[in-house]
Amino acid sequence: MRIALLGGTGDIGEGLALRFARDTDHELLIGSRDPEKARDAVEEYNSVLESHDATADCKGFANEMAADRADVVILSVPPYHVGDTVEAVADVLDADTILVTPAVGMKGDEDGMHYHPPGTGSVSELVAQRAPDGVPVVGAYHNLAAGKLANIELEFDLDTLLVGDDADAKETVRNLTNEIDGLRALDAGPLANAAEVESVTPLVINIAKHNEELHDVGVKWV
Amino acid sequence: MRIALLGGTGDIGEGLALRFARDTDHELLIGSRDPEKARDAVEEYNSVLESHDATADCKGFANEMAADRADVVILSVPPYHVGDTVEAVADVLDADTILVTPAVGMKGDEDGMHYHPPGTGSVSELVAQRAPDGVPVVGAYHNLAAGKLANIELEFDLDTLLVGDDADAKETVRNLTNEIDGLRALDAGPLANAAEVESVTPLVINIAKHNEELHDVGVKWV
Repeated sequence: MRIALLGGTGDIGEGLALRFARDTDHELLIGSRDPEKARDAVEEYNSVLESHDATADCKGFANEMAADRADVVILSVPPYHVGDTVEAVADVLDADTILVTPAVGMKGDEDGMHYHPPGTGSVSELVAQRAPDGVPVVGAYHNLAAGKLANIELEFDLDTLLVGDDADAKETVRNLTNEIDGLRALDAGPLANAAEVESVTPLVINIAKHNEELHDVGVKWV
Repeated sequence: MRIALLGGTGDIGEGLALRFARDTDHELLIGSRDPEKARDAVEEYNSVLESHDATADCKGFANEMAADRADVVILSVPPYHVGDTVEAVADVLDADTILVTPAVGMKGDEDGMHYHPPGTGSVSELVAQRAPDGVPVVGAYHNLAAGKLANIELEFDLDTLLVGDDADAKETVRNLTNEIDGLRALDAGPLANAAEVESVTPLVINIAKHNEELHDVGVKWV
């Protein structure tokens, strides 16, 4: 399978790239608005992987080209870029491409981080609204700490929740996710349930802030 | 310490009563609007506890009397009764009584359960607004499955999140909570962070619905 990580040069993109590269045999297409930046990131990821005796099928592209070649397109961009990014690649998406969205709208104040969804109710539903008709959308990877994910020396045992209205697409993302060591995908229902999933992201940030032993905290549903 | 469980005759109240009774030495005051109902519940709890070789210091009262005698008052009533219950016991509360609120506003539709907070932003903040000045409020026990809690044959390893603006009150509730076997209290910050904590409750219901192996699911922050 070919997995594109749009905005795959930073934050959650880096960790997903390294984990997919090390733990699976899928082809990875790292996307960026600037293809040079994507190629630099791939060079860096390959050197991290080599130092851990892992090799990867990983190349850098402009976002549009990465999306065009992929079966699964992960929108690992900040929430305020999600809509634009979907529109930038819309022409190359079709019903055979699964769009995966991990972004979450948040607002911080002196008390902590708070869930701050767009008018659609959630970023996942915004992506579904902006995506061309027939392109399946799955929300996933919202509540994973980027730092923990990107440190591939770290073993973990974490869950991530999936939301989506297309059962086949969700099953594909579930299988893909379960290939990453220590990561378990659970179903949280249709896209309409995305807000409760996304709002765990500000919550883990608040928990990390107020509990010294839980830096980069994640979640297990037990 | 004396712990009152208002609305302690059903749902989360039953489980908290049985677990506090079995695992701690605190005095439990089970409250109900109808004291007769409270005494019937206590009889039932005592027989469950005896059949597990546990004894408890547990008595039934009208809500007002239970609250009057308690150091910690847990509002284990449905969300639409929380405001009225606080007002019904307001005269007997003072700065030495800690009000604890586990209730969550939710709305269900064909997709699943959704977080549906009151106008104050969260039930925890509603309680703080309705409580007499100076009475400390702590949000806790939101995301525990009532069925799992009440089945005391079941061992678990679960977390519950605390929110509150009074550090001493939060510390008291934290210590109390950690006395229950298999339950760990974590700090999620001030009351202003309650919405993200409360919204985990519809989420666990959605997860339970969509994952066969996770009936009565709870959460560990890891």
